[in-house]
Amino acid sequence: MAEPLRIALAGLGTVGAGVVKLLDANRALIERRAGRRIEIVAVTARDRARDRGVDLTRFEWVDDAAALVDRADVDAVVELIGGSDGPALTLARSTLAAGKAFVTANKAMIAHHGVELARTAEGANAALKFEAAVAGGIPVIKGLREGAAANEIGQVYGILNGTCNYILTAMEEAGRDFSDVLAEAQALGYAEADPSFDIDGVDAAHKLSILASLAFGTRIDFDAVAISGIRHIIASDISEARTLGFRVRLVGLAELTPAGLFQRVHACLVPLSHPMAHVRGSLNAVVAEGNFVGRLVFEGRGAGEGPTASAVVADLIDIARGEYGPAFAMPVDSLAAIGAAKADARTGRFYLRFAVADRPGVLAEITAAMRDAGVSIESLIQRGAAADGGVLLVMVTHTVSEAAVNDALGRLEGSQSLLGQPMLMPILDV
Amino acid sequence: MAEPLRIALAGLGTVGAGVVKLLDANRALIERRAGRRIEIVAVTARDRARDRGVDLTRFEWVDDAAALVDRADVDAVVELIGGSDGPALTLARSTLAAGKAFVTANKAMIAHHGVELARTAEGANAALKFEAAVAGGIPVIKGLREGAAANEIGQVYGILNGTCNYILTAMEEAGRDFSDVLAEAQALGYAEADPSFDIDGVDAAHKLSILASLAFGTRIDFDAVAISGIRHIIASDISEARTLGFRVRLVGLAELTPAGLFQRVHACLVPLSHPMAHVRGSLNAVVAEGNFVGRLVFEGRGAGEGPTASAVVADLIDIARGEYGPAFAMPVDSLAAIGAAKADARTGRFYLRFAVADRPGVLAEITAAMRDAGVSIESLIQRGAAADGGVLLVMVTHTVSEAAVNDALGRLEGSQSLLGQPMLMPILDV
Repeated sequence: MAEPLRIALAGLGTVGAGVVKLLDANRALIERRAGRRIEIVAVTARDRARDRGVDLTRFEWVDDAAALVDRADVDAVVELIGGSDGPALTLARSTLAAGKAFVTANKAMIAHHGVELARTAEGANAALKFEAAVAGGIPVIKGLREGAAANEIGQVYGILNGTCNYILTAMEEAGRDFSDVLAEAQALGYAEADPSFDIDGVDAAHKLSILASLAFGTRIDFDAVAISGIRHIIASDISEARTLGFRVRLVGLAELTPAGLFQRVHACLVPLSHPMAHVRGSLNAVVAEGNFVGRLVFEGRGAGEGPTASAVVADLIDIARGEYGPAFAMPVDSLAAIGAAKADARTGRFYLRFAVADRPGVLAEITAAMRDAGVSIESLIQRGAAADGGVLLVMVTHTVSEAAVNDALGRLEGSQSLLGQPMLMPILDV
Repeated sequence: MAEPLRIALAGLGTVGAGVVKLLDANRALIERRAGRRIEIVAVTARDRARDRGVDLTRFEWVDDAAALVDRADVDAVVELIGGSDGPALTLARSTLAAGKAFVTANKAMIAHHGVELARTAEGANAALKFEAAVAGGIPVIKGLREGAAANEIGQVYGILNGTCNYILTAMEEAGRDFSDVLAEAQALGYAEADPSFDIDGVDAAHKLSILASLAFGTRIDFDAVAISGIRHIIASDISEARTLGFRVRLVGLAELTPAGLFQRVHACLVPLSHPMAHVRGSLNAVVAEGNFVGRLVFEGRGAGEGPTASAVVADLIDIARGEYGPAFAMPVDSLAAIGAAKADARTGRFYLRFAVADRPGVLAEITAAMRDAGVSIESLIQRGAAADGGVLLVMVTHTVSEAAVNDALGRLEGSQSLLGQPMLMPILDV
């Protein structure tokens, strides 16, 4: 049996405690699979006194995370501090520069600094792994980096935020509105007190930018992700979508197009025939469309103590086995820098919802704007007066460029007929 | 750039031709991802004259597969000949004994000889890879061996045969009987002229035995798989199951129980809330339930030229990168030899369908047999007279041991009330 892989754990929140529990619970099995023991030797966190439900007295407590790197008895550092910059980034840089392995669940840091860190890792011949950063326990980094490696990937997309999917499926089941369900999710601990990071799509965008890099062999370009969230979805959007044969999901989608790299997080209508329509609650799913393999779907738990710890320890097992290579599947200098494709160059079908005043001429005004912008309507539903005296108008367009739809909406801007902003959602016709 | 990985291809059927096409089509991308070129140098097949739709004149033709191994210009052999023994096995043994890498899509050979071959590979420090042997293009060998490696796996199960799933979903959609749909599938090329290997569950059993070994760290024990197929499923089974909230799928399931290793291929009722209920047509899906990660689902195309070639080349990329280790995740001597658990020790709910004579006392006779065997009935549906004058009786039991259900059926054996064999399917309550 080889020498143990000795690790230091920085950050002892839910996931950190989960890693300790997992390494305890599955110790013998991990030793068999990894070919050697994986042993925690030192830990650090902000608050030493807090009870985390695991015995930490076995490990050396270090007050300063930076001190972990220099220890001769540490082969690998596991970073679970969080935050795109600050102590997490400092620790990543120093660990990799020292030629030691670095494992993280930190999607924000990888989205912002992944390319720089991969370059440092390459220079020092060190392992940089971040399976837990995307879709929690689902081995989708590995799935793209290795499993689908033989394929040119046309698109990669998925349900990347469990909080949003929990809210959307709860709205679906109960016919309730967003704010209602959000409050409940917060009370149950499924959503943060400040939920904006999740529900405005930023968390999903971090993950998407990492997936896109792996799928297309491009540099991570988080700043080019077009981001929107789920705040403005109402119960009627979900019920009308259902009537039309769709479910509403927050989808992160990336595609390498002739016009450049397209990356967007947006609520979409997903056909009931698509596997993502059946992904419920806080589950995640990632889909890759390859030119030989066809559609690959990975589904599972995208967050939480157990699933995230599972991904962190899978990375450690790869390192213990010596089965790892460049973080983004190829040397950083081989990653292509591709310009961003504008969202409105895309064509597809779209869902539009208007709340309109209940008076003559409104329908004529809206349909005229559509006609003038060259947008052809495939189906239209008008529902009688709502509580506020307004009328709900839902339409699905034929395949058209997003620019044309935006043009139509522009023509209606400031119209007295509209009560509030229209809702636009692409239909996922893949 | 490192030296190319030079491969020999043995077998040029659909998958072999697919590998040639893939290496041509995605050449540049594979070189970037693998860090070196992957080059075919020699090929062999039974019939040199056959047109395979790819240019083979670039490669040296070798008449005798055995001669590939000794060539100094071959680093890895890809075996796509098929058959559990014969030339495929001879080639595997000699390639690995010579310390060269061996990649195969041959599920029958791995199911029967995988442990022996892994031992040879270990002794010679050679790579043995078989991602394409299970679930075609879905990276499920990798998913279990690496992605879920940190977990104790409770169960691994899936839809492992695309032909059966195609037939079952076609029966579902059209309300047609098995033989009808099979004939159509054969005409369309989705089923073999002799379909028994697929529809009687043997192909799924090969794959299941390989998954079980990876999931549980046990020796492959194909002979211990209890196997049945889908020949006796009628259109009414599928429609009644649907009424009850289920779909019928051929499921291969393995579980490590206190009584031993349970492995079975059997038609099951899958709840509509389970992802496998939405896996349609010739798609495959594999599910692993881990003690930290929870449920992981992998879905995609389980057969065919492109998907299978995708898996073969993914293995070659791992080899080119040097990212591989023991074939079954651990040295062969670490694999546990576990006795087989009997199917009838399991408990669960069951679906039962009887075709019975339409006369007084039949229902009393059947329900008495259930009572005497201690089987409690959760729901019962009786449908009026069928074309043959019989009556269809469908029931779902409460949770009970399978031994008790078999006891009940034993009590009814030879009864004049029964028209033909009853149909028994476990309900997948996971």
